[in-house]
Amino acid sequence: MTEMQVTAAPGVPQVLTAREFDAPRELVYRAFTEPDLLVQWLGPRRYTMTVDRFDLRDGGTWRYVHSDDAGNAFGFHGVFHGEASPDGMVQTFEFEGAPGNVQMDTVTFEESGGKTTVRTNSVFQSVEARDAMVNAGMAGGMSEGYERLEDLLAKLIANA
Amino acid sequence: MTEMQVTAAPGVPQVLTAREFDAPRELVYRAFTEPDLLVQWLGPRRYTMTVDRFDLRDGGTWRYVHSDDAGNAFGFHGVFHGEASPDGMVQTFEFEGAPGNVQMDTVTFEESGGKTTVRTNSVFQSVEARDAMVNAGMAGGMSEGYERLEDLLAKLIANA
Repeated sequence: MTEMQVTAAPGVPQVLTAREFDAPRELVYRAFTEPDLLVQWLGPRRYTMTVDRFDLRDGGTWRYVHSDDAGNAFGFHGVFHGEASPDGMVQTFEFEGAPGNVQMDTVTFEESGGKTTVRTNSVFQSVEARDAMVNAGMAGGMSEGYERLEDLLAKLIANA
Repeated sequence: MTEMQVTAAPGVPQVLTAREFDAPRELVYRAFTEPDLLVQWLGPRRYTMTVDRFDLRDGGTWRYVHSDDAGNAFGFHGVFHGEASPDGMVQTFEFEGAPGNVQMDTVTFEESGGKTTVRTNSVFQSVEARDAMVNAGMAGGMSEGYERLEDLLAKLIANA
């Protein structure tokens, strides 16, 4: 299985990740931008994801909730910036449990030889805010979500 | 005259500034959030500023244009994040001449002894994007705007 690469340099309020998927770019982009697909992979397996809003246009807002069997629910929301395309997308990200903290994410999709590399670039308001997100399990949650995405993409390709 | 302090550390996609004003925080906050005041100080003196949109609420958008006598016009827009207050405000910032580049700004206002220190924290998607903005004269434009703000605040206090 392909591993997710993570870079979180000391003193820099940024986290970079890269992960290759065995799928064409158009399909990976669909999995990032169609709510019906997004809920099937984004985040750890223990959460059920519900999308409240997903207005994929410049200035449009999104919101989703992760719920677990114990009754916990975690809300996240943000705003899309610019026109999303299979080249990439830019959006802000706020965890509603930590109001006032805003993260800005740039995601790009690069296809080569039928495989697609997804790169994420998250910038934070401070190194402290970055470290808080890293310590909250950001990379582990993303990595588990990407394992689910790999399975979803394989299923979509098999059923195409 | 108080100087604006600027920090742009090597390898970090961030610019920090700090500048003290001889005015109470509520007044400085008004100058940042009331379009009629904003157009009187934001940016270099050679531009006339027009505010198209200024919807100061969580998820609301703003847009303004800087025009000069030679017929040049430069548009900027972004989105407010969270509830703005005299404690501070968070907003994204995009120069329409460089689409796809998004900057995220956090501004805070601290009052002490009747003076207010304005701190800005701008994070960028990359060090290259940060350096492009710095090389385009970001600090000079801000600093000149702050000189105009100092004059405006003095006038508002004198006329109060």
